[in-house]
Amino acid sequence: MSRFSFNSGTAKYWPLHELIDTAARRGLGGVGLWRKPVQEAGIDRVARQVRAAGLQVTSLCRGGFFPATDAATRQQRIEDNRRALDEAARLGAQTLCLVCGGLPSGSRDLAGARQMVADAIAELAPEAGDLGVVLAIEPMHPMYCSDRSVISTLRQARLLAEQFPAEQVGVLVDAYHVWWDPDRFNELALLGERIAGFQVCDWTVPLPAGVLTGRGMIGDGCIDLRRLRQAVEHSGYRGLTEVEIFNSALWQQPGEEVFDLACERYLAHVA
Amino acid sequence: MSRFSFNSGTAKYWPLHELIDTAARRGLGGVGLWRKPVQEAGIDRVARQVRAAGLQVTSLCRGGFFPATDAATRQQRIEDNRRALDEAARLGAQTLCLVCGGLPSGSRDLAGARQMVADAIAELAPEAGDLGVVLAIEPMHPMYCSDRSVISTLRQARLLAEQFPAEQVGVLVDAYHVWWDPDRFNELALLGERIAGFQVCDWTVPLPAGVLTGRGMIGDGCIDLRRLRQAVEHSGYRGLTEVEIFNSALWQQPGEEVFDLACERYLAHVA
Repeated sequence: MSRFSFNSGTAKYWPLHELIDTAARRGLGGVGLWRKPVQEAGIDRVARQVRAAGLQVTSLCRGGFFPATDAATRQQRIEDNRRALDEAARLGAQTLCLVCGGLPSGSRDLAGARQMVADAIAELAPEAGDLGVVLAIEPMHPMYCSDRSVISTLRQARLLAEQFPAEQVGVLVDAYHVWWDPDRFNELALLGERIAGFQVCDWTVPLPAGVLTGRGMIGDGCIDLRRLRQAVEHSGYRGLTEVEIFNSALWQQPGEEVFDLACERYLAHVA
Repeated sequence: MSRFSFNSGTAKYWPLHELIDTAARRGLGGVGLWRKPVQEAGIDRVARQVRAAGLQVTSLCRGGFFPATDAATRQQRIEDNRRALDEAARLGAQTLCLVCGGLPSGSRDLAGARQMVADAIAELAPEAGDLGVVLAIEPMHPMYCSDRSVISTLRQARLLAEQFPAEQVGVLVDAYHVWWDPDRFNELALLGERIAGFQVCDWTVPLPAGVLTGRGMIGDGCIDLRRLRQAVEHSGYRGLTEVEIFNSALWQQPGEEVFDLACERYLAHVA
């Protein structure tokens, strides 16, 4: 279990201190955290708890959302990402997960939006490196291209990350977003030390309206998670496997039950 | 309008003979048809009507759905595709659109499913060529990878089609499925004479549950359709632009209203 990390978004309504306590008692290697619940609980207080528990913070979710029509809004978002980097550093998080952002409202200019993402990362990258936090570009499933991330594939994320030193910018590999990609194994091999995190859940259909909260529990869907985990590790990734499931049915269950099920399924389908 | 074709799936409940009659009166170049309503109206009767109206049949939807766990089911599906090819030939359709099929139930073997698609196309390709119908592989948006098509990208479709003569196997380019792809313009240039059809609608969010009936009317979304049309034609495609929109709200409107709106939007955003 020491190779496993539990992202708090998987049990959205479970109090954070209970989640961290349970993860530590059950011998997990880390937790993945979200900015808002951490802010509500107190950043330094959460930082002390995870440190005392001996847990890694495998990711802080999330920065990004860079494209915007006007320069002032783009600058505000960069400032918010600076605050997120600071929070990540205080938590000792290894990465700040970047959901890069979709097309600005009314825009059809994908190339322009992708350039805005690159420009913002260029501005933030040196600061991230100074803070010891890796900006982890998360290529997101193409169904989110218009409204969440114009960075859709591992290849796009890799080519963008390679413009910067590896201690500043990496790639977060989430099985849900990349499982379908015919180039995924080639790209994972090329990523090597750029892999800044590895997240798992499963792909199930039908997708719910809005396609945000229909991720499947590990083992309930069609992703060959073990093979992806092996490919990520073969590429040189030494970090943990983090489970992150947004599923409105799971969110209704007690946090510890979801935690137990995720641990069991991790051993059966991923480890 | 002679470069425009109207797919009957856009006005699902409009009687086919009225649709064909309207398309002819309004000077369209063609119509796209679906097997079931054509069978219900009588294949040869529909064939006579479109011929008399001077319309092309730009596509017959659809063949495909090749992967299955057992060989007998795979063979049944090939037989059904043979019947679809025969229907396409009787209609004078230029292409049989292939929705290649997703993963077999319970399978996590994407490579295996993709091989089943290639094997089925290899069996059907010579017959398609003999009938003068092109098997048009439609790469489908990756959100359909598990249940509709393991062929997700233009590049996958091109590499598969190139294993066969161009008069047997081509690629159907649907803007809805490929607009997000960072390689779309490169791939369209490489496709050249392989482009067997070009379909348009728009990408709008939020997606509805099941993600099948939320396609947007031309101009309502974020796809740069004109630029895609230009890229397709620059590659050498000389065929029509076909509108195909599955949208449960549009289906509730009178067919001729939807037809008029699609024509108007085609002129404003695509032509």
